[in-house]
Amino acid sequence: MPVSSRLKMMIGAGAVALTSAMMYTASAQDAPPTPEQLAAAATETRQAVFKLLSFNMAPINGMARNTVEFDAALAERNARRVAALAPMIPELFAVNDTRSFPVTTEALPIIWDNLDDFRSKAAALEEAANTFAAVAAGGDRATTIAAIRAFGSTCGNCHREYRVD
Amino acid sequence: MPVSSRLKMMIGAGAVALTSAMMYTASAQDAPPTPEQLAAAATETRQAVFKLLSFNMAPINGMARNTVEFDAALAERNARRVAALAPMIPELFAVNDTRSFPVTTEALPIIWDNLDDFRSKAAALEEAANTFAAVAAGGDRATTIAAIRAFGSTCGNCHREYRVD
Repeated sequence: MPVSSRLKMMIGAGAVALTSAMMYTASAQDAPPTPEQLAAAATETRQAVFKLLSFNMAPINGMARNTVEFDAALAERNARRVAALAPMIPELFAVNDTRSFPVTTEALPIIWDNLDDFRSKAAALEEAANTFAAVAAGGDRATTIAAIRAFGSTCGNCHREYRVD
Repeated sequence: MPVSSRLKMMIGAGAVALTSAMMYTASAQDAPPTPEQLAAAATETRQAVFKLLSFNMAPINGMARNTVEFDAALAERNARRVAALAPMIPELFAVNDTRSFPVTTEALPIIWDNLDDFRSKAAALEEAANTFAAVAAGGDRATTIAAIRAFGSTCGNCHREYRVD
């Protein structure tokens, strides 16, 4: 199914259903997605954010461990990307409460009881990413490497409470 | 396996292998990932970019179709996110040429014969997203809606040549 038809199907459902339905790629052309299919698609889309966070954090962590050559511009760029991705985390979790569906996930159910705290932790990640990016923009290796720990700890702050151990 | 151990495993492989290995989440704790597993993980990570592009484009396309209420700030924000995501497309394809692996993908094999063109099309998307964001920042509904077509067409420019029809 071409993108245009897919979007039409998704958008036809209206603005509220849209956010959930737009994460669903139809395979059966005419059947509307079931709640189970929407939950599975929502789970995959929120996991997409974490895949891209990992992809962009990995070289920064590698610089800290001296296994990746220091590159201030890359560190800044990737941190800005993390800042762009961070707010998508709570948005995507809010779209679909998948607790009652048999999805494979590391997300703990208590997320949906604590969405405000979950949002504030994502906002802390965004802020830490921008703070780190500003340090990296200065171009100094030592201060940039030293700033990685504070940045990375904002990932762990959320994982500790809301992710399967 | 905690994130720290996972990153150590990935980063231990060195900076070149890193970009490919960091997309792989270990399930067998001690075995290094096979080329097939790396190809599958790379495919999932590049598909993650497209999932988030769709997630962010959907409300913008909905505004064009009048199925989503016009919101200039949301249009601008999502377009900036698209601009942040766009360069990850060719980066992720360059990391792992999955042509010889049995991955499920809509990506045409000719992508890896045309990475420069593929990169320039992603750069065009990034530029169009920023151009659109600047228009949306003006807050005017009519000019913003009118600018969506030029923006959206940069998605199609790449899909036409490089994606399964």
